[in-house]
Amino acid sequence: MRCSVVAVGTELLLGQIVDTNSSWIGEQLAANGIDSLLQVKVGDNHQRIVDVVRSALVEADAVIMCGGLGPTHDDLTREAIAEVMGVELVLHDDIAQVIRDIFESRGRRMADNNLQQAMVPVGATVIHQTRGTAPGLMCPVGDKVIYAVPGVPHEMQDMMERAILPDLRARSGDTSVIASRVIRTWGESESGLNERLNPIIAQLEEVGNPTLAFLASGWEGIKVRLTAKGADSQQAHAVLDDWQAKVLDVVGDVVFGFDADNMESVVLNLLREQGLTLGLAESVTGGLVSGRLTSIPGASDVLRGSVVSYSSEVKFDLLDVPRGPVVSEDAAVAMAEGARRVLGADVALSLTGVAGPAEQDGQPVGTLCIAVAINGRATVSTTLRMPGQRDQMRQMSVISSLDFLRRQILFSSNAY
Amino acid sequence: MRCSVVAVGTELLLGQIVDTNSSWIGEQLAANGIDSLLQVKVGDNHQRIVDVVRSALVEADAVIMCGGLGPTHDDLTREAIAEVMGVELVLHDDIAQVIRDIFESRGRRMADNNLQQAMVPVGATVIHQTRGTAPGLMCPVGDKVIYAVPGVPHEMQDMMERAILPDLRARSGDTSVIASRVIRTWGESESGLNERLNPIIAQLEEVGNPTLAFLASGWEGIKVRLTAKGADSQQAHAVLDDWQAKVLDVVGDVVFGFDADNMESVVLNLLREQGLTLGLAESVTGGLVSGRLTSIPGASDVLRGSVVSYSSEVKFDLLDVPRGPVVSEDAAVAMAEGARRVLGADVALSLTGVAGPAEQDGQPVGTLCIAVAINGRATVSTTLRMPGQRDQMRQMSVISSLDFLRRQILFSSNAY
Repeated sequence: MRCSVVAVGTELLLGQIVDTNSSWIGEQLAANGIDSLLQVKVGDNHQRIVDVVRSALVEADAVIMCGGLGPTHDDLTREAIAEVMGVELVLHDDIAQVIRDIFESRGRRMADNNLQQAMVPVGATVIHQTRGTAPGLMCPVGDKVIYAVPGVPHEMQDMMERAILPDLRARSGDTSVIASRVIRTWGESESGLNERLNPIIAQLEEVGNPTLAFLASGWEGIKVRLTAKGADSQQAHAVLDDWQAKVLDVVGDVVFGFDADNMESVVLNLLREQGLTLGLAESVTGGLVSGRLTSIPGASDVLRGSVVSYSSEVKFDLLDVPRGPVVSEDAAVAMAEGARRVLGADVALSLTGVAGPAEQDGQPVGTLCIAVAINGRATVSTTLRMPGQRDQMRQMSVISSLDFLRRQILFSSNAY
Repeated sequence: MRCSVVAVGTELLLGQIVDTNSSWIGEQLAANGIDSLLQVKVGDNHQRIVDVVRSALVEADAVIMCGGLGPTHDDLTREAIAEVMGVELVLHDDIAQVIRDIFESRGRRMADNNLQQAMVPVGATVIHQTRGTAPGLMCPVGDKVIYAVPGVPHEMQDMMERAILPDLRARSGDTSVIASRVIRTWGESESGLNERLNPIIAQLEEVGNPTLAFLASGWEGIKVRLTAKGADSQQAHAVLDDWQAKVLDVVGDVVFGFDADNMESVVLNLLREQGLTLGLAESVTGGLVSGRLTSIPGASDVLRGSVVSYSSEVKFDLLDVPRGPVVSEDAAVAMAEGARRVLGADVALSLTGVAGPAEQDGQPVGTLCIAVAINGRATVSTTLRMPGQRDQMRQMSVISSLDFLRRQILFSSNAY
């Protein structure tokens, strides 16, 4: 199966919105073993949309159209598909009723133009809407197919998962079930991971199932994704479990989580399991560590708070850091111990460093000093060199320091 | 002039990288009065790249290719252009020397495949590299043109601004100079702004210069962009000044800055001008306000720090908030006054609220209570309703509270 994507909307061409939908679709197609040929952005122009879709169908077996299904005169996807199919659009009464019901349930008056969303090309199958007002469409064109989904990401994703990916896989003659597992790593480069995993990659190339892909995700680390096929879900997951164990044997030292885990959720869960509360003292990151930890619902079980001691005076006065250079491990240790005391936490993490543009205390841009204070143990500290300019330096400091904290808690609990 | 963009790279089709380059290019083309026809992503496949470029050149006067200029065997843009032009690639000695010099200056050994980047289609003009190792290309095809730039965003942007946009404008026969002004607003919806500016928009439609566009930028507010043409830069800027004044007459109450300003930089500059230091007490935003303020170099002149009092106990113990409901204006007032005292700041901003998923203290998700304490004045507070789910609620709270702070400082300084 070869598939192309056509994203419809003048606002995409003008750069007013970045087309993240096509990227998401491309990722899903790859995970389902379907080849991507082209991804095209086209404006709200009937003839141009028709031309692009016709041209895409020459090489592709399927075209996924994203956007242009709304109720305004700029929403031209339905008309374009009808022209490519060579059929009329007809009003589907049951869809019209669903749209009326949606407005009624929200207590809003329905403008008549909303019924445009109930127009369906003759011969097309409807993908029922569960979130928005516009249904999706599955439109046969000879032995090929055009799918249409709304441009609103969560509506598009729902219809892709519920209807389009299963249909594409059925069309490809593939009756197997696909499952994937993301292994989250931090602390090793992509080429380093690749080198260590080379023997496993060689084995996988022989057996062909599962496949392994690296996804470099910036300051989220490198993801290793295993994608397995099986006769059923259980079999696919058994394959994943088997190979995940082999991957962990080789690179388990840099793995911090799986699938939907991120470093923040992993650290919070680890502390919660051990009944420990956390406090922070941030200087260089200026609140980014606590900002990211509190993005996780339920962080309040664990996180007492943070002292963002951006000026040196706040370090000295509130955290009792001895007067002197503030970009140093000594200062980081005092900050962590101060934060633990002031915030009444079991564990505290501190960060002090130089984000630039200028050096500070004789330390170059990129210097990061961090410390972890754990109740009843000696405070530990380290100095790291972060890459990049201000923004990257600060974001890399967040995940690097959380990984250091994670390792200290694991070490500390193993040592009890 | 009609222009299409071809972004080259299998990683784009697989969704491993989101193609933000095309969006940026589309925005620049629009600002320069050049129409965008299509934007296409294609994988690292020689024949497919050739087909896409040929097909794009049928309708477009110019095609900008982005990516595929690196030194590896996957970098196929040069070969594809040569095939479309029907010419050979030849090694340019001076570019080869520049590449050698770049490696030498970084003290790194140059692998021979880097010289692939010095291969140029016969008849093409080189856009010299100032940041990376790969030069860009301007390649005539009849009376049309193919441009090629690296996929690294800052290299691409530099070559677009330095060479490609001027060339496109020269080809369009447009000898005027274009300048633009972004007017940053917060606190009014796009439709509300549109309605208030309708008389000005009607006038602009008659005079035709400048043009006015709205750019909805989520939790950065709505941008109003004026784009003017003039015989020279001075004339274009005079047009902008004139119409900016008319826009400010109508919607000046919601304008917080211009061009590269953002709410963080505006608030920091305002405080700096008045010689005031700032402290924060954050609960619901968990450090996001200080995280964003400290993203601005030089924030340390103004920002003393923040107490992220995420748990109620930290509010009571460290900030002396009276025990009781912590999502309330009373709590916000006590937090702001506590932060001012503890952090030794002239001004303090506090935020407490409910980001969800569950309500708190009987307050629904979306509630935001904020307060501003200014030395020698009565502390002021307000309650706002934020839209959206956890992430959006928190980010909207950041900019809403900074705008409230900005207005209080302006009011306070006017009242002296």
